[in-house]
Amino acid sequence: MPRHPRSLTDTEKLDWLRLLRSEGVGPITFFHLVRFYGSAAKALEALPELARRSGRRQPIRLAKREEAERELAAVARAGATLLGWLEPAYPVPLAAIEDAPPLVTLRGDPALLARRTIAIVGARNASANGRSFAETLARELGKIGFVVASGLARGIDGAAHKGALATGTVAALAGGIDICYPPEHRALHEAIAAEGALLAELPPGTEPLARHFPRRNRIISGLAEGVVVVEAALRSGSLITARMALEQGREVFAVPGSPLDPRCHGTNNLIRQGAALTESADDVLRGLGARGMPAQALALTAALAEPALDPLPAPDEDDAGKAREIVIERLSPSPTPVDEVVRQTELAPALVASALLELELAGRIERHPGNKVARLGT
Amino acid sequence: MPRHPRSLTDTEKLDWLRLLRSEGVGPITFFHLVRFYGSAAKALEALPELARRSGRRQPIRLAKREEAERELAAVARAGATLLGWLEPAYPVPLAAIEDAPPLVTLRGDPALLARRTIAIVGARNASANGRSFAETLARELGKIGFVVASGLARGIDGAAHKGALATGTVAALAGGIDICYPPEHRALHEAIAAEGALLAELPPGTEPLARHFPRRNRIISGLAEGVVVVEAALRSGSLITARMALEQGREVFAVPGSPLDPRCHGTNNLIRQGAALTESADDVLRGLGARGMPAQALALTAALAEPALDPLPAPDEDDAGKAREIVIERLSPSPTPVDEVVRQTELAPALVASALLELELAGRIERHPGNKVARLGT
Repeated sequence: MPRHPRSLTDTEKLDWLRLLRSEGVGPITFFHLVRFYGSAAKALEALPELARRSGRRQPIRLAKREEAERELAAVARAGATLLGWLEPAYPVPLAAIEDAPPLVTLRGDPALLARRTIAIVGARNASANGRSFAETLARELGKIGFVVASGLARGIDGAAHKGALATGTVAALAGGIDICYPPEHRALHEAIAAEGALLAELPPGTEPLARHFPRRNRIISGLAEGVVVVEAALRSGSLITARMALEQGREVFAVPGSPLDPRCHGTNNLIRQGAALTESADDVLRGLGARGMPAQALALTAALAEPALDPLPAPDEDDAGKAREIVIERLSPSPTPVDEVVRQTELAPALVASALLELELAGRIERHPGNKVARLGT
Repeated sequence: MPRHPRSLTDTEKLDWLRLLRSEGVGPITFFHLVRFYGSAAKALEALPELARRSGRRQPIRLAKREEAERELAAVARAGATLLGWLEPAYPVPLAAIEDAPPLVTLRGDPALLARRTIAIVGARNASANGRSFAETLARELGKIGFVVASGLARGIDGAAHKGALATGTVAALAGGIDICYPPEHRALHEAIAAEGALLAELPPGTEPLARHFPRRNRIISGLAEGVVVVEAALRSGSLITARMALEQGREVFAVPGSPLDPRCHGTNNLIRQGAALTESADDVLRGLGARGMPAQALALTAALAEPALDPLPAPDEDDAGKAREIVIERLSPSPTPVDEVVRQTELAPALVASALLELELAGRIERHPGNKVARLGT
């Protein structure tokens, strides 16, 4: 089902925001619910009964209209706007990822989100050489027309934003749109708001916590056709971004470095695993050329990969109850592809989807990338 | 045709040396002549007539018996011995290369030549980090049983020899066995003679000239199952060694480095072209494991790749004259595979081989790696 971009009405946006901020509703569940019930408004109506049926002890907590209105007001006060997944200005490559944020807060120039984008990420404790390389690479990529995305972190991220400030840069924040982190990047944060664009998934006022960073990283790679990793230790956050880029079908570029510097072990390892060895903007161009991923092709990928927004037929309540028990019985703590669940249970895909939705709202299962689900608890 | 290693008699060794030091006889021609005439002694007898027939203006200059005896005496004075390609102590991987030296001068421990060997080469103007890495890698490879080969040059080569001095190292020299180059490596040169092994292709007393180094490089890679390149600029000698290693069917390993250091551009480029990214001895082991090249397999390769030493039937002189003209007419300044010459001329392979031998002695053609020949002059 293609995504047909259109503006959301104020009411729709409020409904989307309420649904998204309701208990147990992450991006993937959000799209499942909207698909299942046909709209965020209808999903909000159905949610209490759906949650009850699934065996929750407590009633589900929905976000109130006033809470959503307060968030919209805070967004406006921050000089920002809320951008919905369906809207024309929402970045196409980001819309294509499985767990795209249904809503993002945007402060800055929306036109940047329509341009071809490369992400540059790397170590917070980067070497002087690493920073200098990142800044130069960002400048070179900017000169040939790319927007540079990064995460506004210390080290490589900051250097990349600086290098691309004049030509176009987008920063994905781990906290709210109005929270500057790290504090020493206040001036850079404001410069990007003025000349580039800031994006945030969480509500204004949210302080970034450790668990927010991997989710922020998926947005950085999601915005881009490719991710360049400049200096990264083994088991570092930048490698999570690289892994997400691969899962999202984006190209991964890695800058080599001395085996004697632990900050290069992660990037060298990426190269060993097949990432494109990158010494210059030319290498990035060549890498993109090899996979032929111009903006148009990306748009097509987005259209094919995105969750459909058509409502599914609601199953009979008895059938749903039985399906729920069959499905949970088959699941284990290790993530299983939903397709495999459908195949093994021999249930209709719509019935499995509905059962998973209910189990998710009951907190009995967890979604994983690659359309996989795992059982929680015992 | 398998190589059946055996000792050469003193007379045979003298004949080999005379043939090898005669005008216009390089390693490839040497093996062609011995194959064609059945022995070095018979080749020496036939050479003047063969050269005359081929259209040379001047009679060919053969090395005199006394010259060869003087060289043997100089070898002995240097505390060295002359090792022939057929002899059991001649290193098997080196015997397998197309242009193996028919004779090498050896000073040091011949037992090292029978052990599995890895070459480590790199920039003469290496960084402190590069030297330290090379020395550590050589030490680690030594610990797990490999002999380390290199070229005794400044920088990476010297560091590699130092690291492997205690466990076993072989240095291939560009000049004669008794010439220490560079002068600052005098102590290392003597330490390798005492604890390791020195090899030289050129006669004692020969000062190394620029044109000798690529030929020395083929010996370094020829001795080894794989070559590790540590720091190398673009268009540097170490890349010639890497290219030769590939032509010889050996594994190429390259150590990554910062794009900001030109001494890493060559190694990074090797990785881009498929060399194994190498940060440790483990990476070398894994790389060798992947291609499964234990010493036994190498011996087999050697047996299959080596030039046969059976005499070919000598063609009729008229036929030979005609073949020579047909062959030279087909050749051009760009190297052509000998197989292609045979196919296009529709001559018997032995006739083409004989014609090429004569043309080579007349200085009208040149041999290239991969069994190719090119026309010289107009």
